[in-house]
Amino acid sequence: MSSLEISSSCCSQETKLPSSPPSVEASAGEPLEKGVNEGDEKSKDVIKFTAEKLSVEEVSQLVTSPLCGAVSLFVGTTRNNFEGKKVVSLEYEAYVPMAENEVRRICSDMRQKWPVRHIAVFHRLGLVPVSEASIVIAVSSAHRAASLEAVSYAIDALKAKVPIWKKEMYEEPSSSSWKRNKECFWATASD
Amino acid sequence: MSSLEISSSCCSQETKLPSSPPSVEASAGEPLEKGVNEGDEKSKDVIKFTAEKLSVEEVSQLVTSPLCGAVSLFVGTTRNNFEGKKVVSLEYEAYVPMAENEVRRICSDMRQKWPVRHIAVFHRLGLVPVSEASIVIAVSSAHRAASLEAVSYAIDALKAKVPIWKKEMYEEPSSSSWKRNKECFWATASD
Repeated sequence: MSSLEISSSCCSQETKLPSSPPSVEASAGEPLEKGVNEGDEKSKDVIKFTAEKLSVEEVSQLVTSPLCGAVSLFVGTTRNNFEGKKVVSLEYEAYVPMAENEVRRICSDMRQKWPVRHIAVFHRLGLVPVSEASIVIAVSSAHRAASLEAVSYAIDALKAKVPIWKKEMYEEPSSSSWKRNKECFWATASD
Repeated sequence: MSSLEISSSCCSQETKLPSSPPSVEASAGEPLEKGVNEGDEKSKDVIKFTAEKLSVEEVSQLVTSPLCGAVSLFVGTTRNNFEGKKVVSLEYEAYVPMAENEVRRICSDMRQKWPVRHIAVFHRLGLVPVSEASIVIAVSSAHRAASLEAVSYAIDALKAKVPIWKKEMYEEPSSSSWKRNKECFWATASD
């Protein structure tokens, strides 16, 4: 897949997502030089929306730091069932600039609440087959409590605030259902 | 490294650990057959102590299930500092049969408390350089709250209950310090 059409009904805008867009790094103007001036290692937020398969190892490595003793991760995967129906895959869409802004805000909130070092949020768009990851969130911290609590907060906040649309593809032929995340604040009461 | 001498001062026993011992799978007598009888997929606890480098991806994949929408992980890594001293690596020792039993008990406790599907606990023994993982815990569940809470419980319980010894290797020549985990219930008040 060379590009992916993505749109968000909530804001009637659309954009093209290349199969591997550059990830967005905030709070880190310069590249990290491991082993040199480790005390000066800048905190970074790496946010990426991509049509490619996600690698838990890659996201984990992105936040790993010599200053940290802990990396906590959450991986959201496609389940083979939803409300009694057999799901064969999920399809995700997002208006990426808006979604990125919301994720960046969540990263900022996490930094207000916990002394975390690096944060990485990778979200896959397009079709995500059963057992594959749609999202990987990784957070590093010197001590474990901060990253454990922050990663838990991150996935709750992301589900509640980030405009990402999910379509369940059921086993029955031509059967599918688009929905906004039911936890999302911009979902209406009738959803 | 073909083998690693491991011992535990608390029980005056020692054993040999091959570089890649078989992992211990509990609660799963038969191999999983993905895609076939997924509803019958048995829960498994995979416990491994090894001298080899840990792979976050491997441990994550071990617990991934078509029945689950969530995998939560904790990765403990070697920090480059401890109480103001520069650490170059950590060295871990354990009396493996005893440590395995304790981890198995923690898995059982987790299953009493949360509806989790698979649990994997991998602990590295021997030298663990700065930024590398000494432990990877992964837990899968249908919905995210269970695995997030369970993985947090697991690392706290493991630190408190499992007899694993840690030696900090400092930058100063010939400077190191063996200690039991200070959170551990069998650490004496004088530690």
